[in-house]
Amino acid sequence: MTTNTTARLNDVDIEAVGRLTQAIEADPDRAATTWKATVEWEGGFRSRAKVREFDPIPSDEPAGLGGTDTAPNPVEQLLAALGNCLAVGYAANLTAAGIEIRDLRIDLEGDLDLHTFLGLAPGNAGYSQIRATVHLDADAEPEKLAEIHEKVVSTSPVGHTLSRPVPLRVDLA
Amino acid sequence: MTTNTTARLNDVDIEAVGRLTQAIEADPDRAATTWKATVEWEGGFRSRAKVREFDPIPSDEPAGLGGTDTAPNPVEQLLAALGNCLAVGYAANLTAAGIEIRDLRIDLEGDLDLHTFLGLAPGNAGYSQIRATVHLDADAEPEKLAEIHEKVVSTSPVGHTLSRPVPLRVDLA
Repeated sequence: MTTNTTARLNDVDIEAVGRLTQAIEADPDRAATTWKATVEWEGGFRSRAKVREFDPIPSDEPAGLGGTDTAPNPVEQLLAALGNCLAVGYAANLTAAGIEIRDLRIDLEGDLDLHTFLGLAPGNAGYSQIRATVHLDADAEPEKLAEIHEKVVSTSPVGHTLSRPVPLRVDLA
Repeated sequence: MTTNTTARLNDVDIEAVGRLTQAIEADPDRAATTWKATVEWEGGFRSRAKVREFDPIPSDEPAGLGGTDTAPNPVEQLLAALGNCLAVGYAANLTAAGIEIRDLRIDLEGDLDLHTFLGLAPGNAGYSQIRATVHLDADAEPEKLAEIHEKVVSTSPVGHTLSRPVPLRVDLA
């Protein structure tokens, strides 16, 4: 049993997750969330995405693509979001299982053909495949880590958003 | 005709885009690109995504979700990536059409049900829908802007990645 796990294993506030889970079990409507961001164009291929009160996320393109190469580009930001999401999944599920994380690093890469973005061909302008390699050093048997790995992948919000078709509506105001 | 458009309309280096397009027409293999990011877990639900030599993109979760609320969370970063990608699309296509952009802002939001992430139900842990509203002030007739809008949406790398199912492989090293 792992019920005597302290709230601070892996510095994760697993009790907060537990409270949210109980609140949603009591009132399923509380699971419905809406998240937001606002992007401001700054000239050239530069823009910044504002989320709540945080420092904006800057964006640019490499010079070869017509940008000024001052920040990660949007498709790199997408890989970043996936990796950050998987990290939360491992931290949450390993902590819930009472397993200490010693180190966690995730390498991500995705393949993208530029023909469609550049208007040279119809088809898929996006990633044709995305791969993530998880380097996890944690205090448990490989079989247990593999089991948790499966759970993380099968419950990842960004992972599911990428691997499933999401209805996307873009309106000109 | 827009061939006498200066390279600096909207501060976009449209000639670089033209050179890339020509290079890919001459050698289609050059369109195949691979993008990368590396995420390091930092304790709790905090992590940072490193892309090339840029400042890392920090990530955290709100306190209600067990985080320490120091940065946008991964699903917010995903909306940011989409908005930044659409901004590049408008900047590229409006500039190619010789149209000056006076202002461009994109509001994004997405709906996400927490049941699956929290392990309370199988199903979709990701966004069920994503909406973007584009506020574009540019020097052209509404019909022309609507035409360019359609082109941007139909050639957006992040838009396509979200609206189509992408093969995603996550391996435990």
